[in-house]
Amino acid sequence: MINMIKSGERIDDLQCKGYSIIQNPKGFCFGIDAVFLANYVRVKPNARVLDLGTGTGIIPLLLAGKTDAREIVGLEIQEESADMASRSVAYNALENRIKIVHGDIKRAAELFSAASFQTITCNPPYMVKQEALENPYAPKNIARHEILCTFEDVAKATAYLVQPGGSLYLVHKPFRLAEIIYTLKKYKLEPKRMRLIHPYVNKEPSLVLIEAVRGGGVNLRVEPPVIIYQEAGVYTEEVGRMYRGEGRL
Amino acid sequence: MINMIKSGERIDDLQCKGYSIIQNPKGFCFGIDAVFLANYVRVKPNARVLDLGTGTGIIPLLLAGKTDAREIVGLEIQEESADMASRSVAYNALENRIKIVHGDIKRAAELFSAASFQTITCNPPYMVKQEALENPYAPKNIARHEILCTFEDVAKATAYLVQPGGSLYLVHKPFRLAEIIYTLKKYKLEPKRMRLIHPYVNKEPSLVLIEAVRGGGVNLRVEPPVIIYQEAGVYTEEVGRMYRGEGRL
Repeated sequence: MINMIKSGERIDDLQCKGYSIIQNPKGFCFGIDAVFLANYVRVKPNARVLDLGTGTGIIPLLLAGKTDAREIVGLEIQEESADMASRSVAYNALENRIKIVHGDIKRAAELFSAASFQTITCNPPYMVKQEALENPYAPKNIARHEILCTFEDVAKATAYLVQPGGSLYLVHKPFRLAEIIYTLKKYKLEPKRMRLIHPYVNKEPSLVLIEAVRGGGVNLRVEPPVIIYQEAGVYTEEVGRMYRGEGRL
Repeated sequence: MINMIKSGERIDDLQCKGYSIIQNPKGFCFGIDAVFLANYVRVKPNARVLDLGTGTGIIPLLLAGKTDAREIVGLEIQEESADMASRSVAYNALENRIKIVHGDIKRAAELFSAASFQTITCNPPYMVKQEALENPYAPKNIARHEILCTFEDVAKATAYLVQPGGSLYLVHKPFRLAEIIYTLKKYKLEPKRMRLIHPYVNKEPSLVLIEAVRGGGVNLRVEPPVIIYQEAGVYTEEVGRMYRGEGRL
């Protein structure tokens, strides 16, 4: 296995079915957002799932462990990340369930057939493009800022690729919520379920989880808040269970 | 004062500056939603405020007690409610600050000048019109269902009546949130602040408070959740303070 790992990379245990992920600590490493998203996604058995902007493949790896998806495709524009994701798939011997595709969300219609996925997931760049960004094409900046892909690109690709009645699951920053809802509705991706994630019960949310359904009816179910800590250093029961792999969100 | 009250009506103490409200227990009586909204609204000193669909005038009465608004206008389509509201204003000797207007939100542009209010408030009907409703024109049904006024009517009237940079404050049901945000943005009323109100921390929210700003920038501030009860029958500190008039939301 040792030749699967390149210089500077490391292998992290995902605490999920014994799976591991190859990451480069100098690059973009996955955060709790990806873990929350993977625990929020509901996938029907045998579904075909697409993860848009998969990075080093954290969402496909977690979904392989947590769901009965038949095939999970991860699409990533950055070659280095896509390469790490492909090697993680091989490292975990998941080639029969996960495919990593190196390509651009904006050209997804050339890569996949219309309505060919039951479920789409996305942990997109959170920040709008900043003209002042010193090195916009640094891998971390591409993952964090809307440099190569805006939220509208995600919605547009999803509206083409997900089947009618299929779901898009997102994690994003609450300060973008109004735009996100507006854009989803513009593309007939109806927000149906939402949870806000707060570090403490008396603090503003740091993340929002959303499920939108292509062609869904207009009612949104806002769920109870996810509270991460009940006191400093002590997870709430729900988040503790999630981290131990004993429960989902 | 006794001749101000009609048969079947009663006078309720508002626990706010000694003010009272005239209500008919057989009609629509105000609920905690109006109290939450009045405690969420921020009004600049000397502002001119409009409450759309004021009912029996609960929001103007509470805002007269809680803010330094110069003038608060309450617009109400139901004659009986508008009449009760006017009598409550007189009962509290607030004629110099509150004006009740009997009229239709859909014709607000004929009643008031463009951009003539700094702040608009609204506790609109929550439910979409149900064709099966037995007596759609019963006062309670008009207050609860979008029979005479849809959310789009509220947004459209506000976009005309509030000054650029002025705010609309709303209380609504969370299941309507996606539609509300979409419609506000359609009318260039940008959602800027939002709080969800949950009966308990582990329950879905029962209400949502929103501030939208005419022509505002796109970032939304989602605030900490309002939790009503810390255990059965015991208010949380924040809500207890609000009810005792010692703090706002």
